[in-house]
Amino acid sequence: MNAIQIDGKAIAEAIRIHVARDLALLQAEFNVIPGLAVVLVGEDPASAVYVKTKAKQAQAVGFKSQQFLLPSNVDEAELLRLLEELNVNDTIDGILVQLPLPEHIDRWRVLETIDPAKDVDGFHPYNAGRLAMGRPALAPCTPLGVVHLIKTVVSDLNGLDVVVIGRSNIVGKPLGLLLGDVGCTVTSAQLQTRDLPDLCRKADIVVAAAGCAGLVRGNWLKQGAIVIDVGINRAMDSAGTAKLVGDVAFTEASKRASYITPVPGGVGPMTVAYLLANTVSAAVSRRRLSLVGSHPESQHAWPSASEKKARATQFAE
Amino acid sequence: MNAIQIDGKAIAEAIRIHVARDLALLQAEFNVIPGLAVVLVGEDPASAVYVKTKAKQAQAVGFKSQQFLLPSNVDEAELLRLLEELNVNDTIDGILVQLPLPEHIDRWRVLETIDPAKDVDGFHPYNAGRLAMGRPALAPCTPLGVVHLIKTVVSDLNGLDVVVIGRSNIVGKPLGLLLGDVGCTVTSAQLQTRDLPDLCRKADIVVAAAGCAGLVRGNWLKQGAIVIDVGINRAMDSAGTAKLVGDVAFTEASKRASYITPVPGGVGPMTVAYLLANTVSAAVSRRRLSLVGSHPESQHAWPSASEKKARATQFAE
Repeated sequence: MNAIQIDGKAIAEAIRIHVARDLALLQAEFNVIPGLAVVLVGEDPASAVYVKTKAKQAQAVGFKSQQFLLPSNVDEAELLRLLEELNVNDTIDGILVQLPLPEHIDRWRVLETIDPAKDVDGFHPYNAGRLAMGRPALAPCTPLGVVHLIKTVVSDLNGLDVVVIGRSNIVGKPLGLLLGDVGCTVTSAQLQTRDLPDLCRKADIVVAAAGCAGLVRGNWLKQGAIVIDVGINRAMDSAGTAKLVGDVAFTEASKRASYITPVPGGVGPMTVAYLLANTVSAAVSRRRLSLVGSHPESQHAWPSASEKKARATQFAE
Repeated sequence: MNAIQIDGKAIAEAIRIHVARDLALLQAEFNVIPGLAVVLVGEDPASAVYVKTKAKQAQAVGFKSQQFLLPSNVDEAELLRLLEELNVNDTIDGILVQLPLPEHIDRWRVLETIDPAKDVDGFHPYNAGRLAMGRPALAPCTPLGVVHLIKTVVSDLNGLDVVVIGRSNIVGKPLGLLLGDVGCTVTSAQLQTRDLPDLCRKADIVVAAAGCAGLVRGNWLKQGAIVIDVGINRAMDSAGTAKLVGDVAFTEASKRASYITPVPGGVGPMTVAYLLANTVSAAVSRRRLSLVGSHPESQHAWPSASEKKARATQFAE
């Protein structure tokens, strides 16, 4: 039996429809059009594509989107000044600096300069810490997208065994924390993990986020496992054509898994969709608004949907 | 064969000797005597004992220690005002608010009011986030103590399988992150984890931090496992006398483990010792000093020992 593919593209589209509805509400009720600022330093072609995609989708759903393109030799101080300006600019609700940054710029200093309330990538330590503590936070977009994808195929994650391969700051580690928060038993594995195949074979859910093409083989999976492939690797097919492949050997894995995400079209679209959802959350929270009936999946956004009303009340005191 | 007991009391004493040496250096070279402020709200007897122990040990190694005892009905605003004063008081390098706080006080607001540079308990989200990102941070004391204890019996943790039972913000979660940083494959388990005994039986190291007396039985362990018991539970012995017991069935576990920590006298003393080590780290970092030959185990303190010189240089620019 072949696994059912989890259609990240369609699910991301549903999120965008929610976001567009939220934006319409915000404009109708509060005359607010949230703004997203996307900052790109240098001319890395892949980064340029990402930035264009994010800006285009942001505009399509109804954000005011602004792009700031800085030359690759820009002074760190100038970049920091721009961020400070965006921090105090009341029309901007979300700020994202596309990574990687040129070598001469201290990435950490840049990320820590962004106002945590506008940090829609969830890379500021303040947000990372609130997330780690299970508290309302602007969480990184890819882990939010992965949790969302899993929830479309399994209603109760409590007690499930999950292996997350890869422990990056933007995917593996925050994802492990989010899955732990909903009751999963999470093993945080790495490439050097002893007997990784055997470990994966015991898992109900395997998330591959190691950046290693075709790492997870079919026989690493127990029958019926859910497989989420976060990898995006450039590879050549047998005809010598470049293509994108994931961290999972898709064809093999499809024969054992119950559900699997394709690459492309799985996790990728979710990341951009959650950038948009985070920007709505930031706008609502930062402006101390209450948005009844907002997107239910952003429960880890800052503040969570369920807390929005409570917070609005609290701030009003 | 019986396990060797890891003597937390003696190891903590060695840390205190290091701290005292650091303090002597700081006074000799920079004429600085770091200050630790301990804030207690209310009269919970256990909290009062903890606070007294911390203040006594701080004074014994050479800190200026100040205790602030507030009545249990103190206004939250008054507590926050005190913290703001301590934040700007240049003679204070470390601030700790003893938990739990009375119900009418928002614990999170209190913890977030403490200057992260003086947050020697490592409970501020900024520090939790830096820790989660594997960056220099003031980390919570108990996880630092646990990693230290493990390192006294195993030189290279890379690739070892660890099960951490319990995922609290002050022990389980930060500990899992710290152990992942040194290359362990960490499974973050909870009481509802499916087949917890079997999971533990595969682990090289089992850390019990679930707050559940005698949870980990002897037959949950593989032969030669290292067992770290973070639990401190009040129980009655057969004669009806109250005593402290851990989360591990000690006698049984000792027959399978290679090394085990006792309760009391294992992890407990390490927590207070790392509070002192963190206060030195905070003093050094906050005052932008460089302390050559400082305590080597505080590599997760903020900034790490290895980065102290680099940072001092950087700040001097």
